[in-house]
Amino acid sequence: MKKTTIYDIAKELNITAATVSRALNNNPRISEDTKKLVQETAQRLNYKQNRVAQALKSGKSNNVGVVVPYINRNFFSNIIRGIEEELNPKGYHVIISQTHEKANKEIDIVQNLLNAQVDGILISISRQTSSDEHFVQVLEKNVPLIFFDRKKEIKGGSSVTLDDFDGAYQATKHLIEQGCQKIAHMTIDLSLLIYQNRLAGYKKALTDHGMTFKPEYVIGLQSEIVAGKDAAQKLMELPEPPDAIFSSTDLGALGAIQYLKEIGLKIPDDFCVVGFSNEPFTQFMELPITSVDQAPLTMGKTAAKVFLEQMDSEGVKIEKNVVLNPTLEIRKSSLKKGK
Amino acid sequence: MKKTTIYDIAKELNITAATVSRALNNNPRISEDTKKLVQETAQRLNYKQNRVAQALKSGKSNNVGVVVPYINRNFFSNIIRGIEEELNPKGYHVIISQTHEKANKEIDIVQNLLNAQVDGILISISRQTSSDEHFVQVLEKNVPLIFFDRKKEIKGGSSVTLDDFDGAYQATKHLIEQGCQKIAHMTIDLSLLIYQNRLAGYKKALTDHGMTFKPEYVIGLQSEIVAGKDAAQKLMELPEPPDAIFSSTDLGALGAIQYLKEIGLKIPDDFCVVGFSNEPFTQFMELPITSVDQAPLTMGKTAAKVFLEQMDSEGVKIEKNVVLNPTLEIRKSSLKKGK
Repeated sequence: MKKTTIYDIAKELNITAATVSRALNNNPRISEDTKKLVQETAQRLNYKQNRVAQALKSGKSNNVGVVVPYINRNFFSNIIRGIEEELNPKGYHVIISQTHEKANKEIDIVQNLLNAQVDGILISISRQTSSDEHFVQVLEKNVPLIFFDRKKEIKGGSSVTLDDFDGAYQATKHLIEQGCQKIAHMTIDLSLLIYQNRLAGYKKALTDHGMTFKPEYVIGLQSEIVAGKDAAQKLMELPEPPDAIFSSTDLGALGAIQYLKEIGLKIPDDFCVVGFSNEPFTQFMELPITSVDQAPLTMGKTAAKVFLEQMDSEGVKIEKNVVLNPTLEIRKSSLKKGK
Repeated sequence: MKKTTIYDIAKELNITAATVSRALNNNPRISEDTKKLVQETAQRLNYKQNRVAQALKSGKSNNVGVVVPYINRNFFSNIIRGIEEELNPKGYHVIISQTHEKANKEIDIVQNLLNAQVDGILISISRQTSSDEHFVQVLEKNVPLIFFDRKKEIKGGSSVTLDDFDGAYQATKHLIEQGCQKIAHMTIDLSLLIYQNRLAGYKKALTDHGMTFKPEYVIGLQSEIVAGKDAAQKLMELPEPPDAIFSSTDLGALGAIQYLKEIGLKIPDDFCVVGFSNEPFTQFMELPITSVDQAPLTMGKTAAKVFLEQMDSEGVKIEKNVVLNPTLEIRKSSLKKGK
């Protein structure tokens, strides 16, 4: 079946294609009578206006770009679900892209989204991202930019983040309350604000409870099980090994638990472990892992609401920063008997 | 900074904007000298052609739409990784959308991708999908359509699928070889071809080894842990309960294992369990779960290659159907001691 074009409508009405085009785009130079006639004929001939062409004219595509480091992290996929739950009922399409933690890919994706004329960009930046030029570009085009979880401090950008300091503080305080005396901290990448804040929360909880911060108890790793095992091994080989680990990642916590079991330690009796992110597997392990829940669904919904607010406030620039509170989910890996 | 437009170039060269536009779009009515002059001036003034406008003219956006039921299933996210690994180096952007297994959302997404003028659509259909009108539309617009894993039989559509029959056959044969006599099968949704094929492979393995197929040993469930628990309970309450389960899903297998342990059965000594998908958690459980690996990375790369082949063969329509072989990853949940 051949698609109806503006030329078919023009022929039908014996007017020029340019007039049809102007009528369809509500040009004031065209009379109301002609507009009505063109509309009716377009409908009768089943004419569908090209949405990209429409977007070019109206500047609105109804697409929203969501950019995350990895789509398959439970945390990020739940945020996306939250965004979709808010935006789909309002007629927006959510287009997802992943950076694989690469700055170049992030820049490329953001430029592609701008070219595709998305109505807004919701993004959690990659670990590598250092420049902010691509974000400046977004704001210069008046496209709403909302960071979630991992943000770049930039004028005009809004954000929805988690109180990582508080999450780490809660986790560390909980370990102290369980009677742990020597609490180590596994971190990921201290160039990212979220990990800096978790380290700071950990330190503060220690000093608030009269415990000394020991730099040798802070160990960096990649977010993988094997790295968690290696890190735990290094910690246990210290002259004075720790009796608890607060890990900035659940996979790191899992790796640590695997190593600690291998060397014959009983968890939680001999050693307590707490993770961060509340990944689903932390619940269904034989030894369920205590973890900090990051409220991803709420984070996604909130980021979407901030976007909608910006779309509704034409002409007015809004910069909004929302900080959500984490919840510590206490499970067997850190709950000593009789406590 | 104001963006350079074709009007700026026109003013600079004292020619009309229409001439500039034609020159930039390589219109044969414009002389080579003028084209060269316009190109140079455009470059000097840092003019950037609107990619959407370009797409409208050339019909090529360099965007490829990938549609999956859920982005956070390890299987689908690995397929997407495979697609990106093939397409990104060729200059394509991969735009991801998820249907949440809803047919309406799938139709909506496909239409949005067509409107956004993607160069191709790679899709794994939702469980609900019954009509194929939206796919006919894609093919009518000459947009390459490649199904992966879950396909719709449609003329002109290509596909990359897994030999699900063989995967189920291998899994069931393995259980028989372990000495299991009464093998049950947990399935998901028999309206989908993949689950039909797995059921067929299970049946064939039974009859090939002189065992009787018992309809009461086939039980349907949702892909969740709790549903796996419930299904296992129902199976164990049969007058003649099974001694093994081949589950079409890993989460179902995990739920079954949890229930079987609760009622005091020893796995694999008393009861063997095999899953399907080789989700990462199957490896790092305390009791690692045997599962059928679906080669998602290869599936993604192959789907991308089929797309590239179609892009390279202008004018010629290619319909290609590739079937990949699964691998059974044997682990503790089905490996009896002394075998």
